[in-house]
Amino acid sequence: MKRIYDPVHHFIELEPAEARLLDTPALQRLRRLRQLGLAYLAFPSAEHSRFSHALGALAVGTRAFDELLHHGRQFFTSEDDVAYQRRLVRAALILHDVGHGPFSHACEAVVGVRHEDRTLAILARPEIQAHLADIDVDSQHVADLILGQGQSQFPVLAELVSGPNLDADRMDYLQRDAYFTGVAGGKYDADQLLGSLRIFQVEGRPVLGIDRRGVVALESFLLARYMMFASVYFHHTTRMFERILQEALRELWPDPRLLDPIDEFLRWDDFRVLNELRDRDSIPARALRERVRLYAVAAEFNAERDLKAFERCEKALRKAYGDAVWADEQSQLLHRLPLQADPKAPTIWVSTSSGAVVDAREASDLIAKLTGKAYWRKLFVERARVDVAEARRICREAAHT
Amino acid sequence: MKRIYDPVHHFIELEPAEARLLDTPALQRLRRLRQLGLAYLAFPSAEHSRFSHALGALAVGTRAFDELLHHGRQFFTSEDDVAYQRRLVRAALILHDVGHGPFSHACEAVVGVRHEDRTLAILARPEIQAHLADIDVDSQHVADLILGQGQSQFPVLAELVSGPNLDADRMDYLQRDAYFTGVAGGKYDADQLLGSLRIFQVEGRPVLGIDRRGVVALESFLLARYMMFASVYFHHTTRMFERILQEALRELWPDPRLLDPIDEFLRWDDFRVLNELRDRDSIPARALRERVRLYAVAAEFNAERDLKAFERCEKALRKAYGDAVWADEQSQLLHRLPLQADPKAPTIWVSTSSGAVVDAREASDLIAKLTGKAYWRKLFVERARVDVAEARRICREAAHT
Amino acid sequence: MKRIYDPVHHFIELEPAEARLLDTPALQRLRRLRQLGLAYLAFPSAEHSRFSHALGALAVGTRAFDELLHHGRQFFTSEDDVAYQRRLVRAALILHDVGHGPFSHACEAVVGVRHEDRTLAILARPEIQAHLADIDVDSQHVADLILGQGQSQFPVLAELVSGPNLDADRMDYLQRDAYFTGVAGGKYDADQLLGSLRIFQVEGRPVLGIDRRGVVALESFLLARYMMFASVYFHHTTRMFERILQEALRELWPDPRLLDPIDEFLRWDDFRVLNELRDRDSIPARALRERVRLYAVAAEFNAERDLKAFERCEKALRKAYGDAVWADEQSQLLHRLPLQADPKAPTIWVSTSSGAVVDAREASDLIAKLTGKAYWRKLFVERARVDVAEARRICREAAHT
Amino acid sequence: MKRIYDPVHHFIELEPAEARLLDTPALQRLRRLRQLGLAYLAFPSAEHSRFSHALGALAVGTRAFDELLHHGRQFFTSEDDVAYQRRLVRAALILHDVGHGPFSHACEAVVGVRHEDRTLAILARPEIQAHLADIDVDSQHVADLILGQGQSQFPVLAELVSGPNLDADRMDYLQRDAYFTGVAGGKYDADQLLGSLRIFQVEGRPVLGIDRRGVVALESFLLARYMMFASVYFHHTTRMFERILQEALRELWPDPRLLDPIDEFLRWDDFRVLNELRDRDSIPARALRERVRLYAVAAEFNAERDLKAFERCEKALRKAYGDAVWADEQSQLLHRLPLQADPKAPTIWVSTSSGAVVDAREASDLIAKLTGKAYWRKLFVERARVDVAEARRICREAAHT
Repeated sequence: MKRIYDPVHHFIELEPAEARLLDTPALQRLRRLRQLGLAYLAFPSAEHSRFSHALGALAVGTRAFDELLHHGRQFFTSEDDVAYQRRLVRAALILHDVGHGPFSHACEAVVGVRHEDRTLAILARPEIQAHLADIDVDSQHVADLILGQGQSQFPVLAELVSGPNLDADRMDYLQRDAYFTGVAGGKYDADQLLGSLRIFQVEGRPVLGIDRRGVVALESFLLARYMMFASVYFHHTTRMFERILQEALRELWPDPRLLDPIDEFLRWDDFRVLNELRDRDSIPARALRERVRLYAVAAEFNAERDLKAFERCEKALRKAYGDAVWADEQSQLLHRLPLQADPKAPTIWVSTSSGAVVDAREASDLIAKLTGKAYWRKLFVERARVDVAEARRICREAAHT
Repeated sequence: MKRIYDPVHHFIELEPAEARLLDTPALQRLRRLRQLGLAYLAFPSAEHSRFSHALGALAVGTRAFDELLHHGRQFFTSEDDVAYQRRLVRAALILHDVGHGPFSHACEAVVGVRHEDRTLAILARPEIQAHLADIDVDSQHVADLILGQGQSQFPVLAELVSGPNLDADRMDYLQRDAYFTGVAGGKYDADQLLGSLRIFQVEGRPVLGIDRRGVVALESFLLARYMMFASVYFHHTTRMFERILQEALRELWPDPRLLDPIDEFLRWDDFRVLNELRDRDSIPARALRERVRLYAVAAEFNAERDLKAFERCEKALRKAYGDAVWADEQSQLLHRLPLQADPKAPTIWVSTSSGAVVDAREASDLIAKLTGKAYWRKLFVERARVDVAEARRICREAAHT
Repeated sequence: MKRIYDPVHHFIELEPAEARLLDTPALQRLRRLRQLGLAYLAFPSAEHSRFSHALGALAVGTRAFDELLHHGRQFFTSEDDVAYQRRLVRAALILHDVGHGPFSHACEAVVGVRHEDRTLAILARPEIQAHLADIDVDSQHVADLILGQGQSQFPVLAELVSGPNLDADRMDYLQRDAYFTGVAGGKYDADQLLGSLRIFQVEGRPVLGIDRRGVVALESFLLARYMMFASVYFHHTTRMFERILQEALRELWPDPRLLDPIDEFLRWDDFRVLNELRDRDSIPARALRERVRLYAVAAEFNAERDLKAFERCEKALRKAYGDAVWADEQSQLLHRLPLQADPKAPTIWVSTSSGAVVDAREASDLIAKLTGKAYWRKLFVERARVDVAEARRICREAAHT
Repeated sequence: MKRIYDPVHHFIELEPAEARLLDTPALQRLRRLRQLGLAYLAFPSAEHSRFSHALGALAVGTRAFDELLHHGRQFFTSEDDVAYQRRLVRAALILHDVGHGPFSHACEAVVGVRHEDRTLAILARPEIQAHLADIDVDSQHVADLILGQGQSQFPVLAELVSGPNLDADRMDYLQRDAYFTGVAGGKYDADQLLGSLRIFQVEGRPVLGIDRRGVVALESFLLARYMMFASVYFHHTTRMFERILQEALRELWPDPRLLDPIDEFLRWDDFRVLNELRDRDSIPARALRERVRLYAVAAEFNAERDLKAFERCEKALRKAYGDAVWADEQSQLLHRLPLQADPKAPTIWVSTSSGAVVDAREASDLIAKLTGKAYWRKLFVERARVDVAEARRICREAAHT
């Protein structure tokens, strides 16, 4: 048993076969993919990698599994079943991000292949197959868990690995991104949330849910996601450099199909991209090197009702400056619970004091109130072509028409 | 300059005259009033006093003041004005809780005098007057700040000391109660909130507000209050022992007017109450000594829509058990922003990117969605007179009728 | 299984029978004994009780036990033996401080009965005996663990409960006192220390020790104790008020034998003492109420070599001021490892890379260098009878003669 | 004024001219130099860069400067002098690590040019000169501060930037490395240490020192350095991969003089090195890619007295395995205070209660006891050529001869 220090979860324990899987080049490569891409240009210490996140997801997922087992041994058929599912969920969490390309989202936008497809190709590689056999899990089960829950014969594990709500991925990254950026928002009551996880039987299927005493922790968990979007993930500096990076990547990879062979894909990581941009003369390459802010925010509207003002401003700006305007419009559901109580759609189930199991929005007025989306709408202008003060003046006027 | 360690705010500095004020018996008495009353019966380490909270409010209020000054020196007429207001807000924060009786809310419920009235009586005492003169502040100004903002000539300070939204009282106690209970919920991004405080001129009056970059911190601050109500302040064990305490206090003070003279009032604190209960034979006295849970929760309903079910259950229980049923119905506004944009009502003002100053609900969809109340409704039954399992069965049935 | 929040150890779990033991008046009384006595007069938030410490010792001791078991199951004869020892060590830790009087050390100094004797008397009470039977442990075994290791048939547990080096008592209180005072010094790498605990067989006896990878954590643990003595436990304000308290207690208990009957003893706690001092007119009573510093530090010498200067200053002060001088001389071994490698004396055993087990001073040069004592020598003078500036001048002169 | 989040120091403020200096390629390059080199192979989350450390040193150095000023305004000649020195110390701290090469120590070992020389060359570059002029500091003063204190006309600032004891560099990196590795050891009481910094006049020169109330914080600071050496900096995995890296760098740079031109030097960073190793077939390149542990620890001796055993084991191993043995012998002074009280040698000065200023070892017995070195001696063997179990057996035998 190997023991690794982690500042978020303290100690993380690894079986020897798991440690060997982690030592393969495909997984070591995750050390060169930053969890938050270019966010370090706004939050300098956000330099943590997908590798440390994979370990963190492993840690938190294992704690979740052990808690589910402790309160729901009846959902497992035997000690062998328990041991198998535990090995399986751990292997899947180690591997869950292995298909990401350099600067993940920018790469997908430019190259056009989804990281899930890369994941399948990587799982199929002989050395990964050999390590999964060594860990003694079926690689098809691993793939099913990582790629979604529909097809898995382990539906609760699938929710834990890749579900939209209570997945170990998010349980780790919110805490981790908060820890490494220094932004408090992503912290939630993880001990209480993990301690409240339960398996319930709903309409004949086992589903992931939480004990009623954990409702406040669940609320804090759902809000943490919003807080991190608002503070970090949609920070204007991050958004701007991600756009600049896409321009640089299009230059770097004029034919994105060159990255299709998985061998070639695996030869790319954040470090290599930055390295290849070092000697390039283009504007985006230089901007990334010297943190040149090519764009400025002319106006910003985050309330739902501001859509009209946003559209008026965009129109006015475009009239004045044409394609030197960039309208960045992001939105996120405040939570991913389905809007109707469709029994097929995954929600978060919560037990009540009377013994019933209900949708989280029934159990919490706060969660019910959080229905809908949050918006982050920004109008950027190119500094090289636009007088920023004038652009801001145009927006002020257009907004209040 | 005296330096005191505080685990929440690290160092707290005191002027000699402030330290002398703190050493008076009226303020030392706050060491024997616990900030969270009987909550330690549910959260064993919640033993912190109103004294450490007064120091904490002083620390956070001073940081707030310094931030307001840094960004709004134009709102102060002179260096003397700055120095006077700083001394004033500090003195008011030291004294803001001095009128609380033993176990605060329970005492008020039984004795029927509001702590604000006690505060005035204590401020009028000669030794306190002397110390305020020594600090060089007008005691009437101090009283105005503590008792509400209407009459104060320092409206921004009044909001900071006793306002409904952005007061230093709450800024400290949420963090402090979270720190000492071990419940994560009360943490919010205090650095960012404090760094975003601003004075704005709205309709000709200076008001307390926040810079738009602090909106996420403001959201986390408003939510922290809800989280602490849900986890700690309305915890069923705390609520139960507070009720038992009220019975004990009625026994201890058959004539509550005996506490009216302020000299007598100041001779009472939590420690004395517990001491006087030590040798009493009554049921509530013994229950407090041995943590006997005289009541059990028969049913609990926290969603707004559950009112009907709650009423049905209460009715069914009362039919079965009469006055052995205790219906504990608590609610709290999710935030204290006024429901209409009444320019007279205190709200939180937020600056926008266009330079306007708007209500916080305009600046944040999240805050807008949080309009309304949260409910904590519990039906307790007396264990001595009721079969708890049967009571729960009655509720399950009544709830689903 | 009951779950309690604790800010130091997060969740603490209790068996129902353990919770019932904690609800007895003898244990609830610990809520009214502060862990650090009067230190709150120097560190305002150090208001935590021996009750929360008892829970903390239970938590950390259980983690230690589980770690010892995980790495040394061969030292246990059966599953029943494991379960029994676990119940036993938990019961002993819950009870380990039950014999303390109000303000512990001051009380012992005045009353002259050691808290260990009180402990035995309390363990003998029928309600405690009944609860221990309910938990299913032998009360004699509990007493043996609490009172020292010589006689116990569970020598490793005895080290864990009351040993001089690696006891759960200290493992909790260093962290806890650091957390509640806000002084960083008492923190050590608790995760690593606990994870390194092992049982070794030395000279035919099982002894408590640590794995070599935990040596740095052990060093930090030993140093944490020194840091807390230097910062908190021997702080001049604490020392001064402890002396004043002794004077007050002598006045309060002119015949200390009145506290001998255990029933009477259990009727006393910190809260009652403070309460009884409320209306007293004596100088010490008033000093405690208003935090009047009756003494001032005239000189302070902490280095070993300063003994001569200390003695010269004391002599010069006594000549000038007679019994208005108080020489407070404290010392502590930097660690409690025995000075010679006496195989009978308890030390901390450490495993080496070659498989041998050696004394901690052999395994760590740092610990070896820390041999000897630390000194805290202070000369106080009574402010009422002495000109403090003059006394300091006398000391400066005498020191440099 | 720009505000940056930092998880260690919360907010860091930058003047616009400072922000522009940070945006130059020479400083952005520090984002691609990891503060702890290859330690991430043992502590996965130790991925923080010299860039975030430079910001941290700036933050902590500014707090130190402000504290020195607050207590020692008499050491500054005018407000202009204050403002100049503050700008100067900030510029120097931003730039203090700018001369480091990829993987710092490994690079120096292979290339043979000290980072101080690189620093001078970088400071001489026109764009850096222009930015320093923009900040309004003399670049020669900056160089003097970074490169050592002998020649500086600001001796106290020189101690703060590059002194052997109380430098902002160490004040940041101990906390930062502890935060990012998750190892507790590097934490010390930074608030208390910073709050105790003072300028003293010793033998006619102003020197950096600390107020006596900060002695315990100073002790914790000195020990933190030892703790981090023992836990992190000399961790066997880190040491092994640093050796492997040196082999890889020798292969990569057969002629290290190619890096001499500063333009070429600045084109290298950790990311590029790792990138260039991606497709190499050599053993060290592959070992770094797949975390292949080419060496195993055969024996380890950390106590001073073990030198003889270490030498015997090395001899025995060499006899058996020749150059397949690697003896890694590291040592560090426990503190850097000079061994004799040479008034010329830099020590840490501490004020006493009598008003004198003494060497830290006089003020603290603990520091006095820590005189001397700590040792970390490891015998590694190459796994490819040596039977590790046999090598360990040889060592066990040789050690006990």
